[in-house]
Amino acid sequence: MNQITRIDTDAEAAMATAIRVLAMDAVEAAKSGHPGAPMGMADVAAVLFNRFIKIDPADDKWPDRDRFVMSAGHGSMLVYAVNHMLGYDDMDMDQLRNFRQLGARTAGHPEYGHAKGIETTTGPLGQGITTAVGMALAERMMNARFGDALVDHHTYVICGDGCLMEGISHEAIDFAGHQQLGRLIVLWDDNGITIDGHTDLATGTDQMARFDASGWHVQAVDGHDREAVARAIQAAQSDARPSMIACKTVIGFGAPSKQGSHDVHGAPLGAEEIAAARQGFGWTHAPFVVPQPILTSWRAVAARGAAARAAWQERLNASPLKAQFTAALAAPDAGRLRHAMRDYCAKLSVEKPKVATRKASEMALEVVNAVLPNTVGGSADLTGSNLTRTKGMASVTPADRSGRYIHYGIREHGMAAIMNGIALHGGLIPYGGTFLAFADYSRPAIRLGALMGVPVVHVMTHDSIGLGEDGPTHQPVEQVASLRAIPNLLVFRPADAVETAEAWEIAVTEPTTPSVLCLSRQNLPLLRMDAGDENLSRQGAYVLRDTQGARDVTLIATGSEVEIALAAADLLAPQGVRAAVVSAPCFELFAARPQAERERVLGRAPRIGIEALIRQGWDGLFLRPGDGFIGMTGFGASAPAPALYRHFGITAERAADLANQLIQGGK
Amino acid sequence: MNQITRIDTDAEAAMATAIRVLAMDAVEAAKSGHPGAPMGMADVAAVLFNRFIKIDPADDKWPDRDRFVMSAGHGSMLVYAVNHMLGYDDMDMDQLRNFRQLGARTAGHPEYGHAKGIETTTGPLGQGITTAVGMALAERMMNARFGDALVDHHTYVICGDGCLMEGISHEAIDFAGHQQLGRLIVLWDDNGITIDGHTDLATGTDQMARFDASGWHVQAVDGHDREAVARAIQAAQSDARPSMIACKTVIGFGAPSKQGSHDVHGAPLGAEEIAAARQGFGWTHAPFVVPQPILTSWRAVAARGAAARAAWQERLNASPLKAQFTAALAAPDAGRLRHAMRDYCAKLSVEKPKVATRKASEMALEVVNAVLPNTVGGSADLTGSNLTRTKGMASVTPADRSGRYIHYGIREHGMAAIMNGIALHGGLIPYGGTFLAFADYSRPAIRLGALMGVPVVHVMTHDSIGLGEDGPTHQPVEQVASLRAIPNLLVFRPADAVETAEAWEIAVTEPTTPSVLCLSRQNLPLLRMDAGDENLSRQGAYVLRDTQGARDVTLIATGSEVEIALAAADLLAPQGVRAAVVSAPCFELFAARPQAERERVLGRAPRIGIEALIRQGWDGLFLRPGDGFIGMTGFGASAPAPALYRHFGITAERAADLANQLIQGGK
Repeated sequence: MNQITRIDTDAEAAMATAIRVLAMDAVEAAKSGHPGAPMGMADVAAVLFNRFIKIDPADDKWPDRDRFVMSAGHGSMLVYAVNHMLGYDDMDMDQLRNFRQLGARTAGHPEYGHAKGIETTTGPLGQGITTAVGMALAERMMNARFGDALVDHHTYVICGDGCLMEGISHEAIDFAGHQQLGRLIVLWDDNGITIDGHTDLATGTDQMARFDASGWHVQAVDGHDREAVARAIQAAQSDARPSMIACKTVIGFGAPSKQGSHDVHGAPLGAEEIAAARQGFGWTHAPFVVPQPILTSWRAVAARGAAARAAWQERLNASPLKAQFTAALAAPDAGRLRHAMRDYCAKLSVEKPKVATRKASEMALEVVNAVLPNTVGGSADLTGSNLTRTKGMASVTPADRSGRYIHYGIREHGMAAIMNGIALHGGLIPYGGTFLAFADYSRPAIRLGALMGVPVVHVMTHDSIGLGEDGPTHQPVEQVASLRAIPNLLVFRPADAVETAEAWEIAVTEPTTPSVLCLSRQNLPLLRMDAGDENLSRQGAYVLRDTQGARDVTLIATGSEVEIALAAADLLAPQGVRAAVVSAPCFELFAARPQAERERVLGRAPRIGIEALIRQGWDGLFLRPGDGFIGMTGFGASAPAPALYRHFGITAERAADLANQLIQGGK
Repeated sequence: MNQITRIDTDAEAAMATAIRVLAMDAVEAAKSGHPGAPMGMADVAAVLFNRFIKIDPADDKWPDRDRFVMSAGHGSMLVYAVNHMLGYDDMDMDQLRNFRQLGARTAGHPEYGHAKGIETTTGPLGQGITTAVGMALAERMMNARFGDALVDHHTYVICGDGCLMEGISHEAIDFAGHQQLGRLIVLWDDNGITIDGHTDLATGTDQMARFDASGWHVQAVDGHDREAVARAIQAAQSDARPSMIACKTVIGFGAPSKQGSHDVHGAPLGAEEIAAARQGFGWTHAPFVVPQPILTSWRAVAARGAAARAAWQERLNASPLKAQFTAALAAPDAGRLRHAMRDYCAKLSVEKPKVATRKASEMALEVVNAVLPNTVGGSADLTGSNLTRTKGMASVTPADRSGRYIHYGIREHGMAAIMNGIALHGGLIPYGGTFLAFADYSRPAIRLGALMGVPVVHVMTHDSIGLGEDGPTHQPVEQVASLRAIPNLLVFRPADAVETAEAWEIAVTEPTTPSVLCLSRQNLPLLRMDAGDENLSRQGAYVLRDTQGARDVTLIATGSEVEIALAAADLLAPQGVRAAVVSAPCFELFAARPQAERERVLGRAPRIGIEALIRQGWDGLFLRPGDGFIGMTGFGASAPAPALYRHFGITAERAADLANQLIQGGK
């Protein structure tokens, strides 16, 4: 507990007012934005920061800082106002004046990486609270590894009604309650208002009872009674369960004619209303002016944090775990992993295992998890199918968080957001599995991870109609295309055990790009017989089998269809057709290669793409509209995999026929 | 209440056993599938069907039938076994013998449209229960319109732990509780087991308390005590709230060595275990043989339903509302809508409104909603932004369900699934709005609607960086591509008020394909000056402005960028460059046109695509790799829209420059 006992309550009230005024001014200047939440939650924020939060603006990456997540991301001006007054050196008043303008750090919603003190990007509702669950879990996992002296911080969340209506909030609440994440404290801005009007238009859930049902400690307070808020936060800190504090607030508090209504939620208040609000606050200063005494109060928070950080630094320096702790927070040892992977691939090229790439993933993970002690695996209740748990990985439980395997439950979306939170927290490298078809459930969190640039590995098995009998609901036909559409995301579809290992090596060492590994259910032969000296998957696509003499056709394939491309080339050879085979495990990496290299790999002969998925995304690899594609044109069906491949015509015979047609057509 | 008072309890027990044995046999024959849930829930299903459910297998589309949803879709063999024994004429024993085989109606998961008596496709967890909420809402809305004589049925759901862990279940539960959908009865298969093991690996939520917190009627029973189950269903029917009955069951009940463990969840039991189970059941019949007395019991359910249907038919025949009721269930009057739209478009071509396409959508909806009395609108709490509510649309509330506007709350995913349920129920045509970026949240339900072929209209506004200041979290750059990737989904991005009207006309009359309307936040001029005699958007893409003489370049654009394409053509004209402009509001409809027509529209000159989104999906429209694209290559930014268009170079000037480059390059 880090409460300060003597509080100058007038000064604290002024701290809150300053948040309100800055929010009004910035939204007015931008002519857009959301004043309602910052004004409503200003008292809560003032108490939280003034009395509790442990951060040092001079070192925004200090590992043992408290994490503050503004899950109601539209209330971004609360964050910017606070961070300005705390004295973050990248948040001067010009940033606030340029709220929502091009190039400013003060984006419409808080963007991780745009400014210091923003722990995660929020805006899409429900993401913040769930990401915070990941942070709070990571804190306890790191604590289990390094003890109270080095890891002992809280995760605070401000969330609104929207966050609690979104489905993902259930996944967050259920998971956090189960894991007893007592360091997580959620402050619910209970203002009874959403964009369309009163919350009773659409919801009647008793949130206190709901959180209680999932094992949380719950309290309700007047969100404008700062002493009550302080007592509640203190009680929350003392309870072993995660805490939810329902803060009854008036949205847009202080806007005399608009407060308490949805008019104040997401639009500028207007000059007249702002003038009246200023008068009500007794605030006589010009726009974007905060008087020194108030700044002094806020800077005291920073000073308290700086002292805490100095004490922590001393503990770290004295700790026998210092080297280990520092290593956990550093980039993974890519060199060591390269060595281990080379040895492993050499072994593969001798043993030539015919395994599903999901199995190959498990084999590669044995290497990865041995070399990198801070990977943490998990699955959305498909461990035996995703094969994400390597030998000796103990479960992370409320009683013992020293384990490395997380049972995310049947919560694909929550898993992805929690993994974002773990990665953002630092010290651990998260990966987690589900079926590729259910990437759709995780998608908003995958996207947010890509936008933030956090290194998370999404293991997605059962990656095509090759999963067979479960049928079209479970067969991804468009998910790979839709994932390739997300910027800053590496989507791998490896063809064999070697490419799977290469994909893991890249994914787990990428510092600022999340990855998706699309893995087969069905067995695939080893195709890459080189000893793995070079990670060819880094090229995105490469010539797996070249021709003797000029190419007649190039067959480009990914994953399970590379085997088919090779078989087609074998069919074509006796017909005198020289077919090169290109394996393309990662379109994004290939797109980043120099144009000349790409042309060399793909060649000038007619090109045929083979992927048991839809065509979208392939035409960019083709040379002319006549180039061919063999894949899916609609949803799959329920049947054994071999029957489906025949039914949908994804066969070596058809590829060979198409090659002959293209070659004839070109003559 | 339709309980039968005298129950032959031995006969009912045998009805349950038959489900178990058929599930074991079919999974064994298929060598894959899930015996655990059908065996565990067989008693509950026997009670539900034997004593309560009102269906007539001879008329599987009877509007007043009860709806039964197997939300735990992996337990599909329960459905197939029941439907076989009920006597659905398309579910003979050969279908069960061919469980999960190509061409059989007995897909791995229940597929809507594959066999009679399957009310919705399930498998992706949480979808069934939420779709059922839509059905139950539609039932009450239709009841408000047509009274108890014509609309008076229940919606029953079997769901598992997985369904209740998925986030979407929260949206379903909160919404159903708020709307007091008393005809909805959820039977939770409370077996304590998921794929990874015991549920306490990942969840500790008290489900009874959770449902209670959202205003549900909750009960807990022994799921193998059939009298207790019957009493609970009866009590549920009597309560005005939606009901959840926690049925404590043993997964795989009757499999002597595997029951109660996750080993029985999703794999064949094996010959030995099946033999032992048969012995325990006292079941001496060969595989896939159900003795006549048991069939007779099941057929009595069908006979009861047939009598109920006959009585209903008499009520309908005598009802003054017959014509209206019949019309509501028939296809929408496309002819009348065409006439109204033609008049409306003629007016537009005179008035030339410069409005955002979201505003144009509202204007078109005034026409649609006037002509089609059974459309029901809604929004995920963005009514004023999505502009989905036309004049006089009253809210659907628990007290009065005669309205036409649904407050879905901040529940994009739930909204999409509920809309699927409304459409599946029949009688109402649902549309609902959110921001396009949050199509990601709805995606699993959008996909399921496309797979089922249910006519739902997803209104997605704020469709590009053109939304401005809200920034990259809210700016869809890849969502249009990812939606275009979903099979059987029409994605419209109209350029002006006329195309918006055309898109609505197509979307709302499509019988078996859902649609997404991607609409701008920013104002756009009217570009189509023809009087709207023909719906040109039906062609998917068409020449909006042709050239005099041979084309030098074709500029292809969608939505807000068609204006830019026209401006680029204007810039090029004085330079002597003849640029045709093609508007392409719907790629899917264009792809379905004859090749010759497509070539005619796109021309042989160099092509340039302009869309303020990523390139994926465009290359298929291009003629040669050198063809150009102007759009986004990554995430957006927070700034006013005009600044963003300049910043990302999506301008007429850049398009004109690129055109000149391509033309030079081609010479």
